[in-house]
Amino acid sequence: MTFTILIDTPDKEGLVYEISSIILKTGFNIEKNDEFVDKEHNHFFMRTIIKKEHNISKNNLYQSLSQKLPKESNIRIFEDTKKSIVILCTKEPHCLGDILIKNNIGELNVDIKAVISNHENLRELVEKFNIPYFHISHKINGAEHLIIQKCKELNPSFIILAKYMQILSPTFVEAFHQKIINIHHSFLPAFIGANPYKQAYDRGVKIIGATSHFVTNELDCGPIICQDIMQVNHTYSWKDMQKAGKTIERVVLAKAIDLAIENRIFIHKNKTIIF
Amino acid sequence: MTFTILIDTPDKEGLVYEISSIILKTGFNIEKNDEFVDKEHNHFFMRTIIKKEHNISKNNLYQSLSQKLPKESNIRIFEDTKKSIVILCTKEPHCLGDILIKNNIGELNVDIKAVISNHENLRELVEKFNIPYFHISHKINGAEHLIIQKCKELNPSFIILAKYMQILSPTFVEAFHQKIINIHHSFLPAFIGANPYKQAYDRGVKIIGATSHFVTNELDCGPIICQDIMQVNHTYSWKDMQKAGKTIERVVLAKAIDLAIENRIFIHKNKTIIF
Amino acid sequence: MTFTILIDTPDKEGLVYEISSIILKTGFNIEKNDEFVDKEHNHFFMRTIIKKEHNISKNNLYQSLSQKLPKESNIRIFEDTKKSIVILCTKEPHCLGDILIKNNIGELNVDIKAVISNHENLRELVEKFNIPYFHISHKINGAEHLIIQKCKELNPSFIILAKYMQILSPTFVEAFHQKIINIHHSFLPAFIGANPYKQAYDRGVKIIGATSHFVTNELDCGPIICQDIMQVNHTYSWKDMQKAGKTIERVVLAKAIDLAIENRIFIHKNKTIIF
Amino acid sequence: MTFTILIDTPDKEGLVYEISSIILKTGFNIEKNDEFVDKEHNHFFMRTIIKKEHNISKNNLYQSLSQKLPKESNIRIFEDTKKSIVILCTKEPHCLGDILIKNNIGELNVDIKAVISNHENLRELVEKFNIPYFHISHKINGAEHLIIQKCKELNPSFIILAKYMQILSPTFVEAFHQKIINIHHSFLPAFIGANPYKQAYDRGVKIIGATSHFVTNELDCGPIICQDIMQVNHTYSWKDMQKAGKTIERVVLAKAIDLAIENRIFIHKNKTIIF
Repeated sequence: MTFTILIDTPDKEGLVYEISSIILKTGFNIEKNDEFVDKEHNHFFMRTIIKKEHNISKNNLYQSLSQKLPKESNIRIFEDTKKSIVILCTKEPHCLGDILIKNNIGELNVDIKAVISNHENLRELVEKFNIPYFHISHKINGAEHLIIQKCKELNPSFIILAKYMQILSPTFVEAFHQKIINIHHSFLPAFIGANPYKQAYDRGVKIIGATSHFVTNELDCGPIICQDIMQVNHTYSWKDMQKAGKTIERVVLAKAIDLAIENRIFIHKNKTIIF
Repeated sequence: MTFTILIDTPDKEGLVYEISSIILKTGFNIEKNDEFVDKEHNHFFMRTIIKKEHNISKNNLYQSLSQKLPKESNIRIFEDTKKSIVILCTKEPHCLGDILIKNNIGELNVDIKAVISNHENLRELVEKFNIPYFHISHKINGAEHLIIQKCKELNPSFIILAKYMQILSPTFVEAFHQKIINIHHSFLPAFIGANPYKQAYDRGVKIIGATSHFVTNELDCGPIICQDIMQVNHTYSWKDMQKAGKTIERVVLAKAIDLAIENRIFIHKNKTIIF
Repeated sequence: MTFTILIDTPDKEGLVYEISSIILKTGFNIEKNDEFVDKEHNHFFMRTIIKKEHNISKNNLYQSLSQKLPKESNIRIFEDTKKSIVILCTKEPHCLGDILIKNNIGELNVDIKAVISNHENLRELVEKFNIPYFHISHKINGAEHLIIQKCKELNPSFIILAKYMQILSPTFVEAFHQKIINIHHSFLPAFIGANPYKQAYDRGVKIIGATSHFVTNELDCGPIICQDIMQVNHTYSWKDMQKAGKTIERVVLAKAIDLAIENRIFIHKNKTIIF
Repeated sequence: MTFTILIDTPDKEGLVYEISSIILKTGFNIEKNDEFVDKEHNHFFMRTIIKKEHNISKNNLYQSLSQKLPKESNIRIFEDTKKSIVILCTKEPHCLGDILIKNNIGELNVDIKAVISNHENLRELVEKFNIPYFHISHKINGAEHLIIQKCKELNPSFIILAKYMQILSPTFVEAFHQKIINIHHSFLPAFIGANPYKQAYDRGVKIIGATSHFVTNELDCGPIICQDIMQVNHTYSWKDMQKAGKTIERVVLAKAIDLAIENRIFIHKNKTIIF
């Protein structure tokens, strides 16, 4: 059996030694180990993949670690099981389609529990892949409440906003704390808000980009997971930028989903530490 | 003899035909030709390099073109002569040093008329290359006026702000309209103003960048010439970002100077068209 | 109506003038114009998009151009109609899936006439999108002949090798001269032939890449259309490289298809000129 | 005092625990720690930066480590002192100039003991920075022997081939085993040998690159340290590629020198592991 352990805790001497000592005593082999100390906040992060032939419960391992480590430690242990996602989208199909096809061909290893949209136009695409599609128009009363209920019911590991053009309420954000991943079509913090390609075109930039980030209550200001860019020039209209940018959006969102489901991301003080 | 012609004018039918017709009649060969029409503003841009064995004055060529082209046309003709620059800097040597060395080894083909700084610390470096160095402290009364006077006297093709940490007054900007090139150490419009690396670190971005642009009266908002970025991650302190970013700053500023002295840049409505 | 004209011809004085003159006389507006002169071979290339309200036959326009231009000129005129492709693949779904989904959502504007594979495993994916799927095993006698026949019958604008693991015979290459586009999973000319990621891993490179190119009789040596790369490091096994590389392969092949169907590519002396 | 410890050894259980245990017992704090296991060769790599207020000799620390670790372990301990280099070059100044200026302004923290060239033309540049310049023409008998002698006498941490256009003999390579760093102006393994830009131009590639690597007896085949590329297109002559490529060459060589002098590189089976 394989576990991935994520530990973060105020830094102190000997943490690597202590943690590796505990793991060895439980009879696990360390397959992969990464550490980082944030010197600004004096905080320690460690991600360890461990393996053992005989079974041991996650709880027992957690007990061993939490007894020896400082109380302030944040210890998470993940079994090697498939994660699940719910995808929220509006009308644009390119990020959604990329996730669907990658999942279908096994390149993305995730259980897509459902796609929820405030429009009907993406149903045909989604149902090609035998994924449940829920149309919840944002025009009806309590639309967001219905979406939250549906998400709670489906209980996914992560909620993916694949070009979802609605702003989530604090209630929504709180209900899925650090579990909602958005793709924004600019290199944040440039061009926050609506129509970033139009903003980029008007500013005359020579690069456009995309940013995947966790959603917080401040619009487009959550912890950044990854970003990429491409060069553009004066021949690009903003529609050309929008078209070209789709490729970066797809790549950046897919990368973020991969990192999330592989338990590679720590969130600390509105930043990500990614191993 | 070789001329580079830059023409921009409200678009209308047959401009390429008309301009190439005039050029042919003057007995020139077209060596290289680039055109672009900005469909949003319906504006035409053309850059043409022409060659001829026998001599012809720039003025005669200008007359031929301006007589036939619409009155609103903006016609610039550049002879194949070395451009000159004056460099303004503060204390940081990396962009300055890069320009000095590239010019020394012939990779940058420009006449550096002087370096003006509000500090003394760069004098030794500059004088190694036998370039005049003027120290004009920003603490003395009328410092900017003195700098403007010195620049007017030296009359360079372009003024290069190679990490010049003072904001230019509208008087300065106006005196060298579309001739002042700045390097800003972020991918604008993100992180305008002071200490962009600290801002980038605090925001937790995964890319840092640099932007060269013409200086206008709005801080860091002039027409962008070129931009580049590099990937960073959680292991970078803001000092690490600052150190790594120097490479991008150097590359982006050197590129902008090259484009400017090769007469490749049009400025139109706060954007650049670059051939 | 809109036409795209591609002209290439030995360079001589006044070609831009002449061609634009002919176009104007036929009553067309020039929407976009790009030229290039290959100084090494003294060869001229021009791509022009022209527009007119009233109809004119392609043939008439061709006549006007060919009468005035030198006999050696290669003149191609494309109407603004949808191109078609046939996709050849083996077992890997990632490039195929990307083309299918992009076409389905309208991001790629092409008529996919069929997918031909020497295996059965991709049928389900292809048929989701109502595209004909032909399984022609390479183990049967005359398999390639059957594929050629099928392609001739379908008569596509381009044949796309989306990870097709068979080498085409000269007969095949000749039958679809300059119409077959391949994706090779390395930055050519590095790692020609089988298993480039394993080759790249063994060499210890720090970048991996992908190359789209026209197929000629020399393996992986045809005219390159586009290339892209990504940084890797010592933590990548060759399987990791293979997985990560899929993203570049998809992007580079999709880009090449876009350029081809938009009539942007000239082929000259085993190189491409792309506007 | 600060030490950087590089340990590589056949992998076995508990190495991180063991090594961190030894370090803690010597009273050091671990400032930074990175590990990697090469699963293909079952080999373990660890780089640790440790700090302590009181002094301890490097030898004592080495003893503690080598007594407890397996005999096959390769243990290197570096004090926090300035490294030194000798630069070999031929006629091209751009990489040399970049190193000289970066060192002068403190961006590169190294002691340049001398520049050795088989030509005279770079003397003036080098002597501006008060660095000894030795001209040893390759035309004289025993030229290489003289260079080896000079290098042995100067005893630098690394020898940097900054566009040195001579092939080193096995004697030379052996005398400075894993200490000679070269910059090759292509993305290796493409375009090994002479004039890679011409080769790249002839092949019609859409990217050009540069590679820094340790020198071995097989030409351009040593362990790769870093690589970078830039996009080019049909408008680039091979002279244009050569000019544009200088920027990548400079950046890639400077990066390699930084990594080497910061003790970040392991060499194992013709590959580098870089922390």
